[in-house]
Amino acid sequence: MQLYTREEIERLIRLDPPLIKVIEQAFTALVTKKVTMPPIMRMDVPEHNGEVDIKSAYIEGEDSFAVKLSSGFFNNPSVGLPTSGGMMILLDSRTGQPLAVLADDGLLTDLRTAAAGAVAAAFCSRKVAGKAGIIGTGAQARLQLKALTLVRPIDHVYVYGRRKDQAAIYKKEVENEQGLPVTICSSVKQVVDESDIVVTTTPSREPLIYAEWLKPGLHITAMGSDAEHKQELDHGVLEKADSITCDVIHQSRRLGELRGVPDLENRALELGELTSGRKQARTSDEDITICDLTGTGVQDTAIARFAWKALKNKGDDLRERS
Amino acid sequence: MQLYTREEIERLIRLDPPLIKVIEQAFTALVTKKVTMPPIMRMDVPEHNGEVDIKSAYIEGEDSFAVKLSSGFFNNPSVGLPTSGGMMILLDSRTGQPLAVLADDGLLTDLRTAAAGAVAAAFCSRKVAGKAGIIGTGAQARLQLKALTLVRPIDHVYVYGRRKDQAAIYKKEVENEQGLPVTICSSVKQVVDESDIVVTTTPSREPLIYAEWLKPGLHITAMGSDAEHKQELDHGVLEKADSITCDVIHQSRRLGELRGVPDLENRALELGELTSGRKQARTSDEDITICDLTGTGVQDTAIARFAWKALKNKGDDLRERS
Repeated sequence: MQLYTREEIERLIRLDPPLIKVIEQAFTALVTKKVTMPPIMRMDVPEHNGEVDIKSAYIEGEDSFAVKLSSGFFNNPSVGLPTSGGMMILLDSRTGQPLAVLADDGLLTDLRTAAAGAVAAAFCSRKVAGKAGIIGTGAQARLQLKALTLVRPIDHVYVYGRRKDQAAIYKKEVENEQGLPVTICSSVKQVVDESDIVVTTTPSREPLIYAEWLKPGLHITAMGSDAEHKQELDHGVLEKADSITCDVIHQSRRLGELRGVPDLENRALELGELTSGRKQARTSDEDITICDLTGTGVQDTAIARFAWKALKNKGDDLRERS
Repeated sequence: MQLYTREEIERLIRLDPPLIKVIEQAFTALVTKKVTMPPIMRMDVPEHNGEVDIKSAYIEGEDSFAVKLSSGFFNNPSVGLPTSGGMMILLDSRTGQPLAVLADDGLLTDLRTAAAGAVAAAFCSRKVAGKAGIIGTGAQARLQLKALTLVRPIDHVYVYGRRKDQAAIYKKEVENEQGLPVTICSSVKQVVDESDIVVTTTPSREPLIYAEWLKPGLHITAMGSDAEHKQELDHGVLEKADSITCDVIHQSRRLGELRGVPDLENRALELGELTSGRKQARTSDEDITICDLTGTGVQDTAIARFAWKALKNKGDDLRERS
């Protein structure tokens, strides 16, 4: 068994079309193959304002699967550490023996979450969508934007963050690194007004977007809520939308935007139904579409397998050359 | 973060009185401290006759806690691999950051399970108990016997195994390595008849021991059942016993010997109540006592912390000397 550090993984794995394809196929597997994906195991460390979530998924026929630990320790910034962290362990499906520990410190989770955002936009939003709206200014606010640019011809970014200094840093970074003009908005409503696609990336506990702001053709991906107390979309938004897609419906009902609106469950689609071609989220350019992402074990297994293959090939390469 | 192999761990950690003390204290913590111990997460890989169990526990006030993966892949022997395996990950309680990966391949699980057997015997069996009865001839049949010798003056061993060749190997090994005479019995009943303490270490799905065989003073530790379909003691055994102790009652009800006998739950004690001095399992040398062990996350956290401390000290030692 091999231990790989974040630095080693970072050199090989990035948010790019091959990774997005891998995550798309993971969603397809969720509806076309037999997948074992137990409920998330949650370890709370209330004394230190922390939690560790454990996810796993096995896709029938695949020769390995991952168990992921992801941590959120909310006092960390006060000691100069990032809030989130984690690692993935890849196991051999035939023997249970560990193949690799990917000590990625949350990197692969960030990437597979962003890749899911790309899949959501690719299968829900209008094809011609140039205006990207981002709510939040953290790591996912950057990665989700990057993800959109890989599937849609984004030419302008509208961002809203509660902290103006963070919004200014975001604008500077995105303009420099992604070469896209960024407008800092003074409200969430302004972002929605200006954008074709909106991605919410916050840990909000109260709705940020309301039904009366929705306009024909809009797509919203809500990726912030992944716990019982979080919410980014007002229930009216879901009610008004022409389609609602979830990564996993039963998880969205517990941890995501479907919580508290049981009537809407029957209407909800799963992302795998879209990627497999079984269903369509959008039937016209006028439709309003919503996608709620809570994060799934199949994404973890998919990116862990993808990363391990790349790391192993790299190792084989180096050995051959030496 | 450091990765330690089984070989490194094996050199430092063995079944001995300090380890038994550590496991005893873990049980005490379960009833005297605030412990977060979520239900076991179970990943099934039916395609390959395998399963991975994930356990964790955080004891308030402790600076680290473990997440454990333990695997059972029952086709492994056909390819020359052991059925069980696993690893432990030790996390910092304040930051969630991984401190160490103990790639112990199930060694620490074996040891903490045996140590629990020692604790059970120390707090339930008669003080003067020289005859040890072992049902089963596998790894735990060896370790549980060793555990008994550390807490009771064992002078003779009675063993029963379904496979005679395995029983013969067991006898030879124990006589050579532990210097104790071993009698191979032709039935479970014979073992019970001859012994002061009986430990059942099998994956049996049907009762092995019946009430009518019980005699005054006997103690039985049932450590085999850890899943919904397993059982080693007939319900009558529990009914007849003067006391029933479990590592964790609600887990024994689901995965252990308390399954199917809800009436007995009210009478059951927890091992931590004994180790903390709050309750007593045995009030006379004539009592019949039962202890059911299903395996708990606090044992994993306790042994992972203990092993890591030893490994780190060893590393510091080596660095100082060089």
